[in-house]
Amino acid sequence: RYGEAELEDQVGVVTGLAWTEVGGEILTVEGVMMPGKGRMTVTGNLRDVMKESISAAASYVRSRAVDFGIEPPLFDRRDIHVHVPEGATPKDGPSAGIAMASTIVSVMTGIPIRKEVAMTGEITLRGRVLPIGGLKEKLLAALRAGIKKVLIPEDNAKDLADIPDNVKNGLEIVPVARMDEVLKHVLVREPTPIVWDETKAEPARPSVEDDDKAGLTAH
Amino acid sequence: RYGEAELEDQVGVVTGLAWTEVGGEILTVEGVMMPGKGRMTVTGNLRDVMKESISAAASYVRSRAVDFGIEPPLFDRRDIHVHVPEGATPKDGPSAGIAMASTIVSVMTGIPIRKEVAMTGEITLRGRVLPIGGLKEKLLAALRAGIKKVLIPEDNAKDLADIPDNVKNGLEIVPVARMDEVLKHVLVREPTPIVWDETKAEPARPSVEDDDKAGLTAH
Amino acid sequence: RYGEAELEDQVGVVTGLAWTEVGGEILTVEGVMMPGKGRMTVTGNLRDVMKESISAAASYVRSRAVDFGIEPPLFDRRDIHVHVPEGATPKDGPSAGIAMASTIVSVMTGIPIRKEVAMTGEITLRGRVLPIGGLKEKLLAALRAGIKKVLIPEDNAKDLADIPDNVKNGLEIVPVARMDEVLKHVLVREPTPIVWDETKAEPARPSVEDDDKAGLTAH
Amino acid sequence: RYGEAELEDQVGVVTGLAWTEVGGEILTVEGVMMPGKGRMTVTGNLRDVMKESISAAASYVRSRAVDFGIEPPLFDRRDIHVHVPEGATPKDGPSAGIAMASTIVSVMTGIPIRKEVAMTGEITLRGRVLPIGGLKEKLLAALRAGIKKVLIPEDNAKDLADIPDNVKNGLEIVPVARMDEVLKHVLVREPTPIVWDETKAEPARPSVEDDDKAGLTAH
Amino acid sequence: RYGEAELEDQVGVVTGLAWTEVGGEILTVEGVMMPGKGRMTVTGNLRDVMKESISAAASYVRSRAVDFGIEPPLFDRRDIHVHVPEGATPKDGPSAGIAMASTIVSVMTGIPIRKEVAMTGEITLRGRVLPIGGLKEKLLAALRAGIKKVLIPEDNAKDLADIPDNVKNGLEIVPVARMDEVLKHVLVREPTPIVWDETKAEPARPSVEDDDKAGLTAH
Amino acid sequence: RYGEAELEDQVGVVTGLAWTEVGGEILTVEGVMMPGKGRMTVTGNLRDVMKESISAAASYVRSRAVDFGIEPPLFDRRDIHVHVPEGATPKDGPSAGIAMASTIVSVMTGIPIRKEVAMTGEITLRGRVLPIGGLKEKLLAALRAGIKKVLIPEDNAKDLADIPDNVKNGLEIVPVARMDEVLKHVLVREPTPIVWDETKAEPARPSVEDDDKAGLTAH
Ligand SMILES: [Ca+2]
Ligand SMILES: [Ca+2]
Ligand SMILES: [Ca+2]
Ligand SMILES: [Ca+2]
Ligand SMILES: [Ca+2]
Ligand SMILES: [Ca+2]
Ligand SMILES: [Ca+2]
Ligand SMILES: [Ca+2]
Ligand SMILES: [Ca+2]
Ligand SMILES: [Ca+2]
Ligand SMILES: [Ca+2]
Ligand SMILES: [Ca+2]
Repeated sequence: RYGEAELEDQVGVVTGLAWTEVGGEILTVEGVMMPGKGRMTVTGNLRDVMKESISAAASYVRSRAVDFGIEPPLFDRRDIHVHVPEGATPKDGPSAGIAMASTIVSVMTGIPIRKEVAMTGEITLRGRVLPIGGLKEKLLAALRAGIKKVLIPEDNAKDLADIPDNVKNGLEIVPVARMDEVLKHVLVREPTPIVWDETKAEPARPSVEDDDKAGLTAH
Repeated sequence: RYGEAELEDQVGVVTGLAWTEVGGEILTVEGVMMPGKGRMTVTGNLRDVMKESISAAASYVRSRAVDFGIEPPLFDRRDIHVHVPEGATPKDGPSAGIAMASTIVSVMTGIPIRKEVAMTGEITLRGRVLPIGGLKEKLLAALRAGIKKVLIPEDNAKDLADIPDNVKNGLEIVPVARMDEVLKHVLVREPTPIVWDETKAEPARPSVEDDDKAGLTAH
Repeated sequence: RYGEAELEDQVGVVTGLAWTEVGGEILTVEGVMMPGKGRMTVTGNLRDVMKESISAAASYVRSRAVDFGIEPPLFDRRDIHVHVPEGATPKDGPSAGIAMASTIVSVMTGIPIRKEVAMTGEITLRGRVLPIGGLKEKLLAALRAGIKKVLIPEDNAKDLADIPDNVKNGLEIVPVARMDEVLKHVLVREPTPIVWDETKAEPARPSVEDDDKAGLTAH
Repeated sequence: RYGEAELEDQVGVVTGLAWTEVGGEILTVEGVMMPGKGRMTVTGNLRDVMKESISAAASYVRSRAVDFGIEPPLFDRRDIHVHVPEGATPKDGPSAGIAMASTIVSVMTGIPIRKEVAMTGEITLRGRVLPIGGLKEKLLAALRAGIKKVLIPEDNAKDLADIPDNVKNGLEIVPVARMDEVLKHVLVREPTPIVWDETKAEPARPSVEDDDKAGLTAH
Repeated sequence: RYGEAELEDQVGVVTGLAWTEVGGEILTVEGVMMPGKGRMTVTGNLRDVMKESISAAASYVRSRAVDFGIEPPLFDRRDIHVHVPEGATPKDGPSAGIAMASTIVSVMTGIPIRKEVAMTGEITLRGRVLPIGGLKEKLLAALRAGIKKVLIPEDNAKDLADIPDNVKNGLEIVPVARMDEVLKHVLVREPTPIVWDETKAEPARPSVEDDDKAGLTAH
Repeated sequence: RYGEAELEDQVGVVTGLAWTEVGGEILTVEGVMMPGKGRMTVTGNLRDVMKESISAAASYVRSRAVDFGIEPPLFDRRDIHVHVPEGATPKDGPSAGIAMASTIVSVMTGIPIRKEVAMTGEITLRGRVLPIGGLKEKLLAALRAGIKKVLIPEDNAKDLADIPDNVKNGLEIVPVARMDEVLKHVLVREPTPIVWDETKAEPARPSVEDDDKAGLTAH
């Protein structure tokens, strides 16, 4: 059933927890990578703040590409599409930021996502995890959907005191402060960092290789 | 008569079922492919959520191109136009997603569409078929239009209990969970997958052939 | 006098019948072709649905270019401007679609338009002619303007029962189902189809030949 | 004094008569040509219909370039800016169309404009002059500004019956039906047509010289 | 103190007088030139009419480049940013036009601006100085700010009769009719015209030298 | 805890003081640099005036690049993303300008920012620091967040008389008039200027490397 935990580990499919007009809800964040020219498309009836959180997530991944084993020029030869299904529901807010970043790392590295983990947290450009609102409603939604483990911002750990015991007993709740921790929990294996020497790499590029690698195209 | 089932199997003409301001209605989704530069145009008085569903459908097809026998660089040498006739009627919602994807696969592969099949369902980037609303009204519209067979999302099968018997008797209703099943029902023959070796392919490309293959142009 | 039938057969000037804020009215649709880069400009105080009908008309012509004797690369070396004069009057709706397509075929082929023919009908990407509203008012406008012959959608033929006899006697009314029929009536001679072999044609193109052949620029 | 007839014949400065929020008024339409890439900029607090009339005027000139002695590739190596001073006043409507076309012909050919002539009329893509509204107010404005000669649309000649005699005595009023007539009156000398052989011309072009010759940039 | 006359002659810093929501006020107009691709950025909480006046000022300078000693291709290898500080205050109207043009000439030529001169006047594409409103309030603002000399449009000279004597005694007020006069007063030295032979210049350009030299980017 | 002073000196993370809908508040301004094409992305629920202040900050840095030891072509081979976290809070006004400039200098030079310094001030294109409003509220927010030292505009020094003594005792408050002073306080070491000879540098550039280095993309 859609709206429940995923049934298998997949590349590019991450379970986020966000706030929509119907309350706390799990959001499937999916990404695909295609041969292309560095474009990023985002869809799913997303409002501006959620679109911006994808932009921040993408810059976090691009600026740390070598740590994830991604050769930087690959961003220019691929298009990425991040979509949040259930197009009929408007979605907003920054709290899916770490789910967005996990999706992008997964599609760029090809490392699958552990299906039993959900997460909520705003992301900064340096991969810090910022606190979010509506923690109780989001955890309840996770429980309803059959999630086993939820990553929450460390700065929200203090709010766990207000969460009913049955929720805390039904879920493994893990406070995280940085994307590094998020990725340790959610990727089925760790990425292998590479060393990248730009000056050596450049001669190998095609001499004329385009333009219009527009950052983010919102449709 | 327009607004009824198509009279012959054609490339790029798919019958969708959607929700418009006048209720459940059949929508003819038509696509054409032209020599071009990778542009996609979408028209037909479409609101944002329907436009986004075409974007998701297109990325599904592009990211799985080789499974459909499409050489990825072809997307850069063709323009696609997806149009939903009856321009006077505004159209919205994600439920024509699987019809959009079927249209795009048909025009890119040249495989005709079986005219007797209609369909409704939201599509995800990985080709999962998500449930839709207004099932009864859509099935009634299909019956009125002389459709024989309707593909519906598997997650909507539970709603069939509420559908009048005359509708269920007059239509072959097939629940589907993934685009693979949709395409098996709607294409007159199966596409033949290819193997694509990007590193081998690139030298063969024209050296300067690129920019502004903008994703989606909405007119 | 402007607003009456044209006085001579011209390339790219077609008489459409449409609905404006002052009722049924004849619309002169004019097009010109210029050396350029594949841009299409549309002007004339047009609302979105009429702009989309020009986009659909253009894709119909482009996707069938060889049937009209047009070498496909020509679209990349020409700009087209479609204008609907009387800029002070807003214009909307899909019913000028077949007039738009006729204009574009005429300017791309150089074949003049028969001045005594007017027409109304929505166009699909495959050149099907869809029914329109306001038939009576449009036919009255045609009669007032001195038109001799009007092409209407076949699906509107049933509405002729409601048209006053003096209108039916004063006009030759021809139901049409496809653009092929429209072009037979409105072009002074038939286009000569060509055979086009893309693989043979490509080496002959200049090696670097631009971008930004934007589909449709609305000014 | 600004707002009166120009004091000398200049290239690219044409006196139009239009309708603004303060009534009939003379509008100075000025154009300049710069080394560039085929861009057209339009400024002067212009509303959409007046912007579209500049677009139509520009396509009229481009599509008839050789008749004016302009080598078509020149449009790709020049930028044109059309400005209507007195930025504080919003301006709209199609009635400055023939003034716009005169400005563009003057800057592209370098032929000065006769300062004593003003004009009003909508333009079509083929250079037909369409009737305008507010003739009396426009002629009164011309008289106040010290204009000697006014070109008006032939289809407005019938409205001269309602114009006060002192206006008709104070102005030479010339009905015109086509841009050819307008240019005969307003240019200080006739352009010399050229013959242009595109196939011969193309090899001489720089091999990469192109994109983003955007039609019309409105600032 | 900001909001007073500048303390030293600088390149690209011009004191304008304009009308803001708090009345007549001095505006510092600043420009910088950077290695780039012909882009112009304008910022400072500017409304459309003021943005258009920068566009007109820029075209005036570009179209007369050789008179200012600027080789025309330089415009394609530089970016210019014109900013009007005090971002919190919205600014509108055409009356800073001649200040904008002075700024652009100064940054393109490197000739400093005399700090003791302020100015107000709309500019045309040919460098004519058009009259402005609010003369009294603007002169009062100049006096308060410690300005010594103010350039005003010649067509506003008649309004000086209504200006209090203490203002006229405290300021040297200079009516100007053309940008040539403005530049004589405001630049610390005169530009040296050059002769530019386009046909000779072109072979020296790099063979592929970009696009997207967009006219004006407003941020 | 987020919303407090940073815990370590980092590249590209600057503490600004700004005005949001909840009053004076500290804003973390973060920037990252990525291999790219000269694009700048700005996110963080920023309104237009704050976006413009980033644009002005970026042009200040670009126009003075060599003073900071940055080779100008580097701007064309890098993308910069400036983000202001806490996406849920709208932010506006020019008073984060000098923080934006400090962020950009830090990411372009790789010189870390002293974590104990916060700052507020509008920036001009020439690096002048303009006065801001809400000084008291901003200083209170700094104190609450554990900041030790605050840079304020010199023109706001007169407002310190109204600031409570406990605030002035708890903070080192440093008036600054120019960005040079700001950078002396906030960078952990001074940048080393370079000499840049454009004519010598150009042959070394890749021959085709250009377009669409759009100034500022706001997502
Ligand atoms: Ca749900
Ligand atoms: Ca939050
Ligand atoms: Ca229908
Ligand atoms: Ca749905
Ligand atoms: Ca009419
Ligand atoms: Ca219709
Ligand atoms: Ca006036
Ligand atoms: Ca008119
Ligand atoms: Ca001030
Ligand atoms: Ca004015
Ligand atoms: Ca906060
Ligand atoms: Ca301020």
